[in-house]
Amino acid sequence: MGLIVQKYGGTSVKDAERVMNVARRVVDAYDKGNNVVVVVSAQGDTTDDLIEKAKEINPDASKREMDMLLSTGEQISIALLAMAIEKIGRPVISMTGWQAGFKTNSHYSVARIHSIDKDRIQNELDKRRIVIVAGFQGINKYDDITTLGRGGSDTSAVALAAVLHADVCEIYTDVDGVYTADPRFVKNAYKLDDISYDEMLELASLGANVLHNRSVEMAKKYHVKLAVKSSLNNHEGTYVKEVEQVEKMLVRGVTRDNDCARVALCGIEDTPGKAYQVFALLSKSGISVDLIIQSIGNGTKKDISFTVTEADLDTAAKILTDNKDVLKFDDIKTRKDVSKVSIVGAGMMNNAGVATTMFEALYNDNINISMIATSEIKISVLVDQKDAERAVCAIHDKFML
Amino acid sequence: MGLIVQKYGGTSVKDAERVMNVARRVVDAYDKGNNVVVVVSAQGDTTDDLIEKAKEINPDASKREMDMLLSTGEQISIALLAMAIEKIGRPVISMTGWQAGFKTNSHYSVARIHSIDKDRIQNELDKRRIVIVAGFQGINKYDDITTLGRGGSDTSAVALAAVLHADVCEIYTDVDGVYTADPRFVKNAYKLDDISYDEMLELASLGANVLHNRSVEMAKKYHVKLAVKSSLNNHEGTYVKEVEQVEKMLVRGVTRDNDCARVALCGIEDTPGKAYQVFALLSKSGISVDLIIQSIGNGTKKDISFTVTEADLDTAAKILTDNKDVLKFDDIKTRKDVSKVSIVGAGMMNNAGVATTMFEALYNDNINISMIATSEIKISVLVDQKDAERAVCAIHDKFML
Repeated sequence: MGLIVQKYGGTSVKDAERVMNVARRVVDAYDKGNNVVVVVSAQGDTTDDLIEKAKEINPDASKREMDMLLSTGEQISIALLAMAIEKIGRPVISMTGWQAGFKTNSHYSVARIHSIDKDRIQNELDKRRIVIVAGFQGINKYDDITTLGRGGSDTSAVALAAVLHADVCEIYTDVDGVYTADPRFVKNAYKLDDISYDEMLELASLGANVLHNRSVEMAKKYHVKLAVKSSLNNHEGTYVKEVEQVEKMLVRGVTRDNDCARVALCGIEDTPGKAYQVFALLSKSGISVDLIIQSIGNGTKKDISFTVTEADLDTAAKILTDNKDVLKFDDIKTRKDVSKVSIVGAGMMNNAGVATTMFEALYNDNINISMIATSEIKISVLVDQKDAERAVCAIHDKFML
Repeated sequence: MGLIVQKYGGTSVKDAERVMNVARRVVDAYDKGNNVVVVVSAQGDTTDDLIEKAKEINPDASKREMDMLLSTGEQISIALLAMAIEKIGRPVISMTGWQAGFKTNSHYSVARIHSIDKDRIQNELDKRRIVIVAGFQGINKYDDITTLGRGGSDTSAVALAAVLHADVCEIYTDVDGVYTADPRFVKNAYKLDDISYDEMLELASLGANVLHNRSVEMAKKYHVKLAVKSSLNNHEGTYVKEVEQVEKMLVRGVTRDNDCARVALCGIEDTPGKAYQVFALLSKSGISVDLIIQSIGNGTKKDISFTVTEADLDTAAKILTDNKDVLKFDDIKTRKDVSKVSIVGAGMMNNAGVATTMFEALYNDNINISMIATSEIKISVLVDQKDAERAVCAIHDKFML
């Protein structure tokens, strides 16, 4: 008895059979006396197909028109899911982003939610209707359609759960929950029953591929209890919430992220402000930098290395090369065949032995570390991509078994 | 130098190449100094594909959800056409039905336009932007998406031309204009330079397949000058407008409509109110009746025959059979293999010889007439479907050559 927001991704509604399956799950929750709001993504490959159509006509189409185009994907899904629930015979209504009251800023393709005018949804819930909402989209102050960018549907769901004060926001995906490592290649990986927002944030940004960071950040900010579950079975899933620290269990997960590339500026002048100059240039072009390492320097020269996503590598290298005269460095080196392997766990850094244990695991498996970065709740190392899976397994088994 | 509303149908934008072709035509008109508003339909088979998707899940889906689904077809088209125009390098903006201010009643799937709030479009035109509008759709007072039903995009275009006081509303299709008969089987058929609204109305409802009736009615009511043109060449097309009658040219077109079926109620009681009873029953079920013939009767019994569309035949027959006891008739006979052949021309009925000439043409070709109906500007006859093309040719050559 309560209010549940459910979110289903594109693979969960990819065809008629899957849509009916989701409809039955939604009705199950509704029949238990809950009010249910459902957020859905575009079906399977719809978004990619639409992008393909656009590219054929104009690879440099404006983002406004891309959003106009892409938002149809979710609109198709909500209508089909509503029809499936009508077939089972429950009262239901679908709503596009703008009908559901999603107001965003005007950054087409990466819009942020400003507010949600929940009147219409609340009104429909009061009539005991199931409400199906198109994820990933809203409108800006000009009444133009915007999309929220990667992970947008998760964000839509969490934002709705926040404004509606839902009891839980259930994120349905094709995995059972959050695992200690990727079960596809770590045979001893196991599912976590719960995890804190901060730990989930680190796992999400480290390539765990379950929840998008923005949605977790928002869940943390508005105290929305998240549940990550599979849409294909009835297993318990993983809860993301404020968890009291269990001192014993320091490391919560081991992750690998192949989408990173390393840039090394060698022999850069060892004068104040160099790091600022480098990263200001990159951030002006919208390039996010992840791990950063600076050698101590000898008073004349030093080295600065950092990682970016593979997509940003060429742009980053070009910007720095174009500014070689200003930045004054000897050489720039780039590498794509690297992976970031990380361990995450709240309170981990209070325990001096954790980093040592991680490095020991890698050493035992003869894996070379090329960069190291640490934060309150994670330790990341950069390794050769070919060694990454082996590294995850070695670290996982060392900590988790 | 003026304001042009152009409308392109689904085949005109069915793939990337066709979309680019339309974009070039739009830009042509724009570069001549005109303000241009473009209404587009869904690409090629998109609407059918969406209907198929819906049927797979729920063949009895609510019309509200069907409209939510189908309206995405036009939204995809407007975005793609806007992208194509961006590629050519002209300022352009696409708008869904609701963004373009289309307010309709709440009859989902067959909605009527109540009003168009033209502020936003006017505003964009004032900035010298090309405006691309999704045809076939609007929103009702609940902010729910509605669609306008068959020929809806034509209606959207004419309605826009009316409120914007456009100089002309150009309807682009895959034929060159309005012909005196179907050029696919009447080898002497030729294109008309202009035609009156009333004549076009009769031609449209008689199966000429060029313009939908609703759009012509609206054009007549608001004095919108229509031009029917091909999107594949630069031929002149046909203008639909108030035309002064040219006394010489009585017959403007010959049409054939295969989508009709005949119902005959034989031996119905010859008492007052029988025709009312029969047609009241049918209209309550939303069945439109076309030609109606009633035999004179002998004081005891008479026959009533009428035509309906083929899709309505079975329902019509069932309703009448179910009410046999009330209506009191001997027998009901139905036939599908019939066609309606018609001639259209304003002022025709003032010339007594026209009907005679038509019947003579059919008699000369040994074609039997099973029903006859006349109005101010048309004469229709029902013939065997196998004779229909021959009938059209015979009549056409008699009048037009």
